[in-house]
Amino acid sequence: MSTGKLILLRHGQSQWNASNQFTGWVDVDLTDKGRAEARRGGELLRENDILPDVVYTSLQRRAINTANIALDAADRHWIPVVRDWRLNERHYGALQGLNKAETKDKYGEEQFMAWRRSYDTPPPALDADAEFSQAHDPRYADLDKVPDTECLKDVVARFVPFFTEEILPRALAGETVLLAAHGNSLRALVKHLDGISDEDIAGLNIPTGIPLVYELDEKGNVLNPGGTYLDPEAAAAGAAAVAAQGGK
Amino acid sequence: MSTGKLILLRHGQSQWNASNQFTGWVDVDLTDKGRAEARRGGELLRENDILPDVVYTSLQRRAINTANIALDAADRHWIPVVRDWRLNERHYGALQGLNKAETKDKYGEEQFMAWRRSYDTPPPALDADAEFSQAHDPRYADLDKVPDTECLKDVVARFVPFFTEEILPRALAGETVLLAAHGNSLRALVKHLDGISDEDIAGLNIPTGIPLVYELDEKGNVLNPGGTYLDPEAAAAGAAAVAAQGGK
Repeated sequence: MSTGKLILLRHGQSQWNASNQFTGWVDVDLTDKGRAEARRGGELLRENDILPDVVYTSLQRRAINTANIALDAADRHWIPVVRDWRLNERHYGALQGLNKAETKDKYGEEQFMAWRRSYDTPPPALDADAEFSQAHDPRYADLDKVPDTECLKDVVARFVPFFTEEILPRALAGETVLLAAHGNSLRALVKHLDGISDEDIAGLNIPTGIPLVYELDEKGNVLNPGGTYLDPEAAAAGAAAVAAQGGK
Repeated sequence: MSTGKLILLRHGQSQWNASNQFTGWVDVDLTDKGRAEARRGGELLRENDILPDVVYTSLQRRAINTANIALDAADRHWIPVVRDWRLNERHYGALQGLNKAETKDKYGEEQFMAWRRSYDTPPPALDADAEFSQAHDPRYADLDKVPDTECLKDVVARFVPFFTEEILPRALAGETVLLAAHGNSLRALVKHLDGISDEDIAGLNIPTGIPLVYELDEKGNVLNPGGTYLDPEAAAAGAAAVAAQGGK
């Protein structure tokens, strides 16, 4: 029996997606294309009558604006909002701000893919005084320590407990919960929901702007393994495009 | 000693402000001009370094989008959000949807001004099945009774207790609280904050898009009676424009 739904929505194209730079915790905005993706995501929710009762976002502009635009398009702009840093993108450490293609050329394909896809090896740490550090950002002032780099395992460690304690109970109470977040925070969640191994998660790519719906039973088990994309054809094309990133 | 601040921000021009229609609880969007007003409001917050720690909005798109745009411009898009119907605009009853100038011509100046400015006499009630009723709107499903008309006294009765119980404690704890709301919900609050009489509140007009800052002492008393507009010249011109509404 379905008791609630999760809707995972990865933000659309950001300014640094467009310029092929590692972004992580740098707070870049959506491009016009990214805004259009968010609007389409909201229209898909409305067309499929899968309407969120509450939305969770990261503390990052590209996910916040994705939620705002999608909810406006779905006529659900008025639902409660929770923002939390644990939905943030993976911190990319010293790679933040670097061009992906140049980084690949400089360090080689193997190191590049290790930084992008290794489950438990983070990139080199970013200096607290570096241009793209968040060490002094007021939105993270309450954290014991602001991350200076993260691997996917670190994202799992911060996000999954928050999901289990704060978000899952709302779904189990019958609410439809929208999570507007990022490629790697959503990969961390999907790893948990679908029980994907540390090795296999490297091959999972989540497309942007296409709602991915998980239906849960009363214990929180997934009823539709892998989730259901509201636009499966666009999702397949989008995942392939994500996998190809890092090329020119 | 100042313990916290309130920032009152009335939404900018809406589609029905532009077409001179009574709006009330009808959920119309901002115009491009209204979006520009919201952006300017956020820039004023940033320029004056008066940065909200939390934002309260109504459940209406024009206030929600005003908050979203202003906070984005102030680089405070990541703060916590609370949405509540008690910040909504006054429900305009059977006037909702009618053209203001036509209504004035049809019913005369005296009745028109009574509907707009009487403290305790609401307009005729709106039928629950009327086109512009909110009786069946899902966002109000939890209310015992969805309003079908309100006078300003009704708005005071719903909003001021919510302010006192939910919002004021945060300001007294030292937070700067942004309230993104509407002409009449903000008039209700200003009446309370400044101790304005039932008669005198009729003459008070709040301009759109210009942050109005109240500083409070540790008991919640206002330290700067009447509040402080962050752009006083624009505020004076804006208030005069509001007062002139209902003309052609």
